[in-house]
Amino acid sequence: MQAGSNAHTTPTLDVFTAVRWCGTHLQLLDQRRLPHAEVWLDITDLQQAIAAIQSLVVRGAPAIGITAAYACVLAARKRATRKRAAGTDQDWPVHWRADCQRLLQARPTAVNLRWAIASMQQVLDAAGIGDQIQAGVDVEALLSALAQRAVQIQQDDLAANQRLAELGSALLDTDSTVLTHCNTGALATAGVGTAIGVIVQAHAQGKLRQVYADETRPWLQGSRLTEWELHRLGVPCQVIIDAAAAWLMASKQVDWLIVGADRVAANGDVANKIGTYQAMLVARHHGVKTMVVVPWSTVDVNTASGAEIEIELRDSDEVLAFQGQRVARAGSMAWNPVFDVTPAALVDYLVTERGVIAAPDRQKLLAMQQQSA
Amino acid sequence: MQAGSNAHTTPTLDVFTAVRWCGTHLQLLDQRRLPHAEVWLDITDLQQAIAAIQSLVVRGAPAIGITAAYACVLAARKRATRKRAAGTDQDWPVHWRADCQRLLQARPTAVNLRWAIASMQQVLDAAGIGDQIQAGVDVEALLSALAQRAVQIQQDDLAANQRLAELGSALLDTDSTVLTHCNTGALATAGVGTAIGVIVQAHAQGKLRQVYADETRPWLQGSRLTEWELHRLGVPCQVIIDAAAAWLMASKQVDWLIVGADRVAANGDVANKIGTYQAMLVARHHGVKTMVVVPWSTVDVNTASGAEIEIELRDSDEVLAFQGQRVARAGSMAWNPVFDVTPAALVDYLVTERGVIAAPDRQKLLAMQQQSA
Repeated sequence: MQAGSNAHTTPTLDVFTAVRWCGTHLQLLDQRRLPHAEVWLDITDLQQAIAAIQSLVVRGAPAIGITAAYACVLAARKRATRKRAAGTDQDWPVHWRADCQRLLQARPTAVNLRWAIASMQQVLDAAGIGDQIQAGVDVEALLSALAQRAVQIQQDDLAANQRLAELGSALLDTDSTVLTHCNTGALATAGVGTAIGVIVQAHAQGKLRQVYADETRPWLQGSRLTEWELHRLGVPCQVIIDAAAAWLMASKQVDWLIVGADRVAANGDVANKIGTYQAMLVARHHGVKTMVVVPWSTVDVNTASGAEIEIELRDSDEVLAFQGQRVARAGSMAWNPVFDVTPAALVDYLVTERGVIAAPDRQKLLAMQQQSA
Repeated sequence: MQAGSNAHTTPTLDVFTAVRWCGTHLQLLDQRRLPHAEVWLDITDLQQAIAAIQSLVVRGAPAIGITAAYACVLAARKRATRKRAAGTDQDWPVHWRADCQRLLQARPTAVNLRWAIASMQQVLDAAGIGDQIQAGVDVEALLSALAQRAVQIQQDDLAANQRLAELGSALLDTDSTVLTHCNTGALATAGVGTAIGVIVQAHAQGKLRQVYADETRPWLQGSRLTEWELHRLGVPCQVIIDAAAAWLMASKQVDWLIVGADRVAANGDVANKIGTYQAMLVARHHGVKTMVVVPWSTVDVNTASGAEIEIELRDSDEVLAFQGQRVARAGSMAWNPVFDVTPAALVDYLVTERGVIAAPDRQKLLAMQQQSA
């Protein structure tokens, strides 16, 4: 995915989504360029999709999952077409499953990526297709079913967002002040967002006094994306540096810390953007209530606890340079984990489209998993 | 103080200090340009000094105090000379005292600024000079005494730094890992620094395994200055984003959080760079010991508690732009307090050149004040 070869701009966002399926290919709003430029990149194959996920063109656990689903469609079409041209189209599923494995490695922490790919593979599984296409299988119908599944994943996320917004905003009292971390809005999901969805819904209900957005170093999703999204939606928002959260809570009234997550373990531990754990700790100290808002696809009952979650370490330069301009001494090093794990004990409410869990723990999460399975 | 009119570069720092008195004028190392350029600015009058303090050419409570002392010298010379030329030199002290008041307003939080100006005014007080010069007073000798006092303030800070380094490093065990916040080294003081002095001394004693430096948003003193200083001195240092401190403590062994301060109140509350309070809170939660290292001139027994300390609010753009390049949406707003207050209860050790106070409180601080007064 080269910005030069497949970049184009649109004057305004016609539909406020960052992941747009065009039938033949995918379009991604380049989130590295926001809020100053709205640049769309055409994604036509698997490799471009992987590059877009790794380079943070697209970010946010749900949006990564949706992108991955469409990437699976693009990969399947390419494999099937290439093999058909070579007259050996029976074995393309084995190559496609290898493509899916490569995609799975793009980023390690967000579980939605794994979940979406598994959902796509189930389309072939359900048709009884393993590594080979059996005689008589309608390949076009199969490819079409894959595309339908990807669209369904996006639509399900959209619907889940709306439910999350309703359930989460119901917890807020009037005149609430909210702190949020990173970006969890339309840019990160298929709909109005997770934590931001709750905030926007609360604003629509007249319950919000003020939002503070952590700037969210090193990628500044808070100051670049969250402030921009909330401003578009008329929600009053001020940015703070991440390190000011505790002082904000000590010197002003803050009622809620509301965040999303990249993975929720079976015991309720929450992996999310680096800095979430610190914010949750200081929220608890100051009596600020905490809410984690996720679609159920972010809950991973196969991960027993946060200790099992692989935390992605990224390059020093993300911390030590800004837009290609070096900040720190050349040769300096940074420790750059991009997620952290918040113990379930610091979470007051876990909001999913299946319902709200107060003080989440293993028993409550598994009960909700079974009840709705 | 225009960078264009009085800026010059030197190939290397001949003496590692950021505040250099040249007899006729002051030279300041422009800390906004580090670590990429070592640019010295000539400060020849009061207005240039105020602008340098306000625009963060010079920062760090002790260095601000030293700069202010020399600014008082420059102001007195200008007042005395101008009045002498006008043949009305008896009343220049009243104008000089007004200059001192203007200087005092340059930044509100660091007490060293006030302390240094008061010390300079005592030179005139001690000579029995109020608003007028009495007949027979040797003005040249008086100006010379002012310059000597300023040099003494700088030399005292140098000596205090050495003592702080010895007292503080004695508290560390071997193989220690230390987190620090902001920049408290030679750039911020007259000597080896406060918190950084302790770190450097511990390194010289073979006690240090690793230093982590908070990058310290929004001015990035940690990644720009602390990393650069520690690297020059051979101390192993990695930068982290401020929001990663809690996760660092949860996932690696961290023994100490060591910081400086801009003001210590009589009850031991500590005003320091924004983010210090948050780091101290999470240190306490993780059992990481905390040390605040300050020259006694930073202790203000006239401030009863942290609640009385004025916290400077600076412009939104410091958070929302980087080196003139806008990060967030044009028109967005940030809440930008540049200091916060850590309650004394979170401080395990207060290290001053007068001695170490464990678990500082009002009684212990006042006892040390009286014992050494």
